[in-house]
Formats: sequence, structure tokens, C-alpha cells
Amino acid sequence: MKVLGVVVEYNPFHNGHLYHLTEAKSICDADFTVAVMSGNFTQRGEPAIVDKFARTEIALRCGVDLVLELPCVYAVQDAGGFAFGAISSLAATRVVTDIAFGSESADLEALEKIASILVEQPPSYLRFLHEELKKGHSFPNARRIALMRYVAYEKLFDPSTLKITKRSNDILGLEYIVNAKKLGLKTTFHVIKRIGSDYRDENFKGTFSSASAIRRKIKEGDFESAKKALPDESYSIIMREMDAGRGPVFYEDMEKLILGTFRTMTRDELNEFAGFNEGLDQRFVYYAVRSGTVQEFLESVKAKRFTFSRLRRLSVYPILKMRKKLVEESNEKGPQYLRVLGFNEKGRQLLQLIKRLAPIPIVTNASNYLNISKKATKKERYEHFEPDLFKDQFELDIRATNVHSIFFTNSEERSYERDMRLGPVIIVSKPWNRHN
Amino acid sequence: MKVLGVVVEYNPFHNGHLYHLTEAKSICDADFTVAVMSGNFTQRGEPAIVDKFARTEIALRCGVDLVLELPCVYAVQDAGGFAFGAISSLAATRVVTDIAFGSESADLEALEKIASILVEQPPSYLRFLHEELKKGHSFPNARRIALMRYVAYEKLFDPSTLKITKRSNDILGLEYIVNAKKLGLKTTFHVIKRIGSDYRDENFKGTFSSASAIRRKIKEGDFESAKKALPDESYSIIMREMDAGRGPVFYEDMEKLILGTFRTMTRDELNEFAGFNEGLDQRFVYYAVRSGTVQEFLESVKAKRFTFSRLRRLSVYPILKMRKKLVEESNEKGPQYLRVLGFNEKGRQLLQLIKRLAPIPIVTNASNYLNISKKATKKERYEHFEPDLFKDQFELDIRATNVHSIFFTNSEERSYERDMRLGPVIIVSKPWNRHN
Repeated sequence: MKVLGVVVEYNPFHNGHLYHLTEAKSICDADFTVAVMSGNFTQRGEPAIVDKFARTEIALRCGVDLVLELPCVYAVQDAGGFAFGAISSLAATRVVTDIAFGSESADLEALEKIASILVEQPPSYLRFLHEELKKGHSFPNARRIALMRYVAYEKLFDPSTLKITKRSNDILGLEYIVNAKKLGLKTTFHVIKRIGSDYRDENFKGTFSSASAIRRKIKEGDFESAKKALPDESYSIIMREMDAGRGPVFYEDMEKLILGTFRTMTRDELNEFAGFNEGLDQRFVYYAVRSGTVQEFLESVKAKRFTFSRLRRLSVYPILKMRKKLVEESNEKGPQYLRVLGFNEKGRQLLQLIKRLAPIPIVTNASNYLNISKKATKKERYEHFEPDLFKDQFELDIRATNVHSIFFTNSEERSYERDMRLGPVIIVSKPWNRHN
Repeated sequence: MKVLGVVVEYNPFHNGHLYHLTEAKSICDADFTVAVMSGNFTQRGEPAIVDKFARTEIALRCGVDLVLELPCVYAVQDAGGFAFGAISSLAATRVVTDIAFGSESADLEALEKIASILVEQPPSYLRFLHEELKKGHSFPNARRIALMRYVAYEKLFDPSTLKITKRSNDILGLEYIVNAKKLGLKTTFHVIKRIGSDYRDENFKGTFSSASAIRRKIKEGDFESAKKALPDESYSIIMREMDAGRGPVFYEDMEKLILGTFRTMTRDELNEFAGFNEGLDQRFVYYAVRSGTVQEFLESVKAKRFTFSRLRRLSVYPILKMRKKLVEESNEKGPQYLRVLGFNEKGRQLLQLIKRLAPIPIVTNASNYLNISKKATKKERYEHFEPDLFKDQFELDIRATNVHSIFFTNSEERSYERDMRLGPVIIVSKPWNRHN
């Protein structure tokens, strides 16, 4: 039995995602497909354009069998933390045999070689890395240059191969392989060459446009263009959500909340949360009172060594309460649950199997989470289960949902405590009927 | 020399305020008039419609000589805390000889009698109060009924006199007298009978309309009506502020910030702030995730024993960081500074005198506050000065300004850290020229 695992945000699910999914399923001849998906906040530090239940439904309609939530504590971290949480979740299912990811280079061999260096961390590589960081490079850049120097120094392989550590999907893929190696997984990796535009390319390119270009079209109200880049299932569900006033939600909607939060915090208070090192605590506090918009705020805080994604993530940490302690423990001990966001008939079968094998509890009905944790402490199979960490990780997911829904246009939908009231999305019907 | 002191919010300064001010000055034959004014947040827990510098300018143009800021820690408290801070500030000037306040009853004798009971707190009165509070009445109601029972029981005077403790201006006036008695002040009190509508009357009544009715007209964009109820000086400055994009600011503008703050707080975190007793911590946390608007939020939290003003105040406490410890210390030790918001030529002379007499430091240039505190610790005259409390009180005022300006419509004005960059408003010109 082949079970394909993918790590996704689907913000929103577009034609490129559909191509990737179809290719991946075909390449590894998958019997089942399970996706680990970010919840209501993404790795760019943004609220998702429509909420996780809607994005789950789209994923199921488009060919995923089971959708699990990547806990927020990992979803809103850098590539390293994100990949650790995602690969740990896929590993915890105990059923995933293959993992596929999109890649600009599609050079799996090179990624494997580089991953080995990153896992083994030879001293001369670490020295180069340290030197490059001291020069003020951002971490991804410093790492890329250090790798290049190391590979040239040790004459391992053609350093030009390392140009692939420059592009976002390759960077994430690399982290997937690194984390799988560290966890000792025997999963087979597959790369799918990305088609169409880079995810950072905000220019709309028609059928194969990036998620950010599509979000921008939706923000501008140009739904006709967005439609061209989205599978019908995705477009219909997004429109349905918008009609109901559950989105679209954008980072800029959080402007007053973000400015209000940072204008009233001291550096000490900020340091309770993860990531405010390298003088960032001071920069955030200093510029909050000197910026009139979130855009201006991030641009002021920005320095060469920080990426915008990192700053945007940090800008939501005090709101979501991403505490230092929680992030550190989570990065050491891994996710403490598998949250089921939705499944189809095949997904249900797979879930039965996962329930029997997983080393951490499965959360299907979120409102029951405290009970699930209580029972889990008594189960022998969950020998490494940490109830306090479970609670902290899970309550962060709930908070993220409750912050996200504040920005729904329909105020009645805002007051609906979604995680507590909605069960998983279950699709038992025949394939999507376009005329319904 | 007669120096008149008044306690005001001027949110905004309207015809009723002008009448009150003119009457008061005439009744006590004042040589100078000093106003203690709320800053950027008011006793109703709302951001002021235009900021404190604009409201200061209006006050000076309309006949006040010196405007001092009521520190935010008092301005956003119930009548008791508000009055304590205001009367302590007027007392600290050491020059105020007369205090005038607006009153529905204008029955000073009755107010003095009731104040004596409240200061002396005889045991039988306290027992009645306790009983009424236990019945679930709000504090003002319980106190009124307890007073009535006490007066009847002791056969002191006609209990019907006590109906005056039901109306907002009388309640505040009573607190002024109570606090003056407690502080042992020899100031003469004057009452000015209110004309026009009750401050709670949100119906627009033309020339003499309440501040809330006027704010509503401005919110609706009906500036022509608002104009009828405002002195020319007030109207022009409000229009100028709005044209510059510095307002109007309304409580509802804070919706996302308030919901975002309460949706991400635990009861324990909330209890760090003042006033979340009587189960209010639980009610605020519970309803935050179940309310789509701030209106709905307050209505859900509301119970018989809580007034809306109290709930609205509490709703901004965690944002402004009105910590329990700060409020308690402030209510024990009084304001630690006199912040000068503005003055005219006469005000400048008065200020010179106050500087020589006041038992707490004068802050004229806010950006210099840390230095002022440092020097104050060395001055013998400031024997009760507490530098830590000074810092906490003053930084709350700064935070209140920085939160308030987030809601300016012009984003460039938002980023202007006003307390640090603006000096006091100084009016040295001839009286306001309508044709300028």
C-alpha cells in the first residue's frame, strides 16, 4: 500500500496545486493521499484568505483523501520549524510511504547531498555559516553562501548546484529531507518540477499564477481573473465563503490590531514571545509608534538580514501568543496530536489505520480536546505524550481561528467559535458536481 | 486672588460647557481659570473624538487660562477614582481657591450633607450598602438606596433629597466634595445648574445638546447640526482636525483591537488589570469569542449590576495596560505630576506661581519626562514624590495617546508620536478672530 503525503497551505488551492497533486499521485502510484495543511495563519505570517475548513473542503474536492492540520506553532515558523512540524506530523501517521514536494530545480540528488551536509554539520561548514551571519546576511542567504564555500573547500561537488538553495520551494524541500533524515524516516521523496510562476511572483500569469498573485486579484475584486487560475471546485467554494461573509481575510485587515499590540508593549513583554532576537525587540517597539500603516511598520523594521516573511510572522506572534517556551518545546518534542480537518470515504479508512498506529492522539472533534488529552495520558502507546504541551499547542490553534474570524466581513460569522462548533469536513458524496 | 478650578472632558467643548464656564467665572469672580481635563480616553471608556491638544486649544480659545491633563489612570476610572485624581490635581496646584461643577439639582447644601455621610461612613450606612450590593445592584444604585435607608433610619433629613444621587453630574459633584473633604481642602465649591439635556441624552436638542448627541451627529457626518451646538471656536478646530485626518475617533473604531485583545487572553492574564472582579474576567473572556461586534460584546457581558460605562472602561484596560497595581497605588498616593497641556498669557503667569508651590513636579515638555523625574527625586519640596509611580502613570498617558492616534484617518498623522513631539498649546494672540 502506497500512501502519499504532501505538505501544503492551499492559500488558495490553484491550478498549480492541482497539477502538483495529480502528478505526485501518479508518480508514486498512491492508494491514498494525506495532506498536512496550515490552519488559519500561514508561513508568511498572514491570515489565510479563507478559513481552514473551507480550504479543507477544496482540498478534498480536488483529490486529497485526508487533511490534517499543521499545528499553528509550526505553521507560522521559518522553513526549518515549519518542515519539522510537517514531517513529524506525516511521520506520526505511521502510514505515509512517500512524500512529494514542488521544486524549482527538481534535482532530488542535489537536495539529498546538501541535506546530508546540513544534518551532519561538519565544523568547517559551521565556521563558514558563522562568518556569513556575522556579515549581516539573512539566515537563508548566509547558509547558501556557507554551503557554497564548504562545497568548494572540500571539493565535494560542483558548487553551482547550490544555486538551488536560493528558491523557496527548494529551500522547503531541503528542510523536508533534512528533517526526515533527522527523524530516521524511510519515506521515499519525490520532486515535482514547479510549473508557472514562482510563489513570490505577484504578477498574475493566467492559468498558472502564484497564490499571492491570485490573492491580489481577489483583493482587487477581480474575480474573473482569479477564476482562470483556480480549479472550479476551489473557485466555487471561495465564492461561497465570500458570499457568506467569511472572508476574504488579508494581512492588512489586521493593521489596527497589530499597531495597537506593538504600541503598547515594552521590549521585556515582547521578549516573552519567540524570535525577537538580534535587536528585533527594540526595532519593533521603536517603529510601532512611528508607523501609520503595517506596510510602513514592516518596512521600517526591515534590515538586510531580515526577510519580510520573518518580520510578518513576528508581527503576529504577540497576538497569537507564540511564546518562546512553547516554540522551543515544540521544536524539541514535536506535535502532540494529529488534528483531522476533513476526509472522504478513502480518508476515513486511512484514518482508522492511523488511529491504531499513531504515537500521538488523533483529534477529530476539537471541542473534546481536554478529554482526549486526559485519555491519552493513560494510553501506553503514547509513551512520549506531554499533556501540557498538547494543551498549549492546541489552544494556539484555537486562538488562531478566533483571531482569524474577527476579520470576516459578516459580523454574525465572526462570533461563531468555529473550532469548538465545527466538526471535520466529511465528503462522502460522488465527485463534485459542477451543476449543483 | 481667586483661582477657579474646573474638571472637564470637553469631548467636545459645546455650548453647555461655554455657559457653565462663563457662569462659574462670573459667580466666583475668578482672576484665573484652570481646567483639569481628561486626555485621549474618557470616563466612558472611549477614545476622545479629537485629541487632547486640539481639545486644549478649544478650551483656551473659549476662556480657560491653563489646561492640565488628568492622568489617564484616573480619567478612565469610575466617578470615585476620577474625582480623586481630578481634585488631587487641583489641590496640587496650591492656587485653586474655588471649584465649580455642573449639577442637575444645583443643591449644594444637600450634596454637602450626603458627602459627610460618605466620608464618615457610619456603620449602619455601610451595613445598608453591603445589603444593597448583595441584591445585585450596580454600585451607584446600591449606594443611593443605602443612603436613602440610612437617612430615613437616622431621621437626618428628608430622604427625597437623595434622588439627586441618581444623576451623573450630581454623582460626580458629590465625589468632588467627598474627595475635597478627605484631602482637607478649604476650597469653596459652587454648583452651576445644568441647562439643556442630560449628558446621557443622545437625542440632539439644538443649541444645548449633550456631548454624546453631538458626537453622534459628527459620526453621521451631519456637521451642520453639530455646528448649532458648538461655539465657533470649537467647531472650527474640530473641522480643522478632521480635515487633517486627525479624527474623528470613535469607540467602534477600536472593534478589531478590542476583540483581538480579549479573544487571546486568559482569565489569569486579564486579572493583571484593574477591575475584572465579580466574575467579569470570566464574562469578558467567554463572550469575546462569541461576539462579532464590540456592541454585541458589551451587551453580552452586561448584567444588572454593571453599567455600560464600566464595561466600556474595562474593555480598554488591557489595551492601555491599566494594571491593578498601578490603579491601586495611584488611588492611594495621588497623581505624581501636573502635565501642562496648554495656557494663554494669564495661564503662563499662573503656571509660574504653581511651579513654586506644587508638591509634585510640573511636566511641560513631555519628551523630557525621565529627566524631570530624576530632578524631582532630589527636590526637598517633593518629599512624597514616587519616581516609579510617576513613570508608570506618565507612560500610561503616552500609551493612551499612541493608541488613540492609530485611529486617525490620515495614516501620516498616526505615526506622529504626539506626546513626545508636541509641546503645550500656547495662545498668546488676541482673542479668537472669527474671520481668520
